[in-house]
Amino acid sequence: MTTTVPAPLPLATPAGGGCCAPDLTQAVDPEAAQELARSFKALADPTRVQLLAIVATQPGAEACVCDLTEPVGLSQPTVSHHLKILVEAGLLERKQRGRWAYFSLAPGALASLVGSLSAATQVPH
Amino acid sequence: MTTTVPAPLPLATPAGGGCCAPDLTQAVDPEAAQELARSFKALADPTRVQLLAIVATQPGAEACVCDLTEPVGLSQPTVSHHLKILVEAGLLERKQRGRWAYFSLAPGALASLVGSLSAATQVPH
Repeated sequence: MTTTVPAPLPLATPAGGGCCAPDLTQAVDPEAAQELARSFKALADPTRVQLLAIVATQPGAEACVCDLTEPVGLSQPTVSHHLKILVEAGLLERKQRGRWAYFSLAPGALASLVGSLSAATQVPH
Repeated sequence: MTTTVPAPLPLATPAGGGCCAPDLTQAVDPEAAQELARSFKALADPTRVQLLAIVATQPGAEACVCDLTEPVGLSQPTVSHHLKILVEAGLLERKQRGRWAYFSLAPGALASLVGSLSAATQVPH
């Protein structure tokens, strides 16, 4: 198996009044650092990383909470708690459809984080 | 001021037996999720984000611990503690030179994280 690096991104930053994470090089500023740390904190838990990965790989990048409990082996209240943190961090969006809540990747949120980190790899040194 | 998106990355993944973060789409697997969460946990603190940003923007992407205390307004033991966490997460490298420790961006570590997140934005849905 060869290891390939993902192709360069068509970085889909949110259009209009988008909420882009500050880039890491701006995080010399304490407020920008706080904002970035908040996003990373949401990802600092293996269950939340797993939930995000599962949602990301579903058709339409969307999953019902009812399909998320079994793969992570946790109760629905616990899974809902983790999903809430991901929603509050702006990484997932939640839609209620009848009895069930559905979670989808928030457009541009991951790309914005990618942009914020990659900026630091491009500083001329 | 115009907002520009960083240019596509020359993704410098570590050469040879490199230690790339698993991509997010693989983090459906609990072990891969654990590994990614560990990196994000190191970045889940505003002081550590700020320290990483300061190091990243220095000439040579390297800074002496003696120059890092003042910008973050913390004592040297506290700063050293945060730097140790970033080193353990593989994001920074530490070199002792005489009396002082110098910290530099670990080659490829940020790019690897960037790659791991961006993979999830490229899943065909």
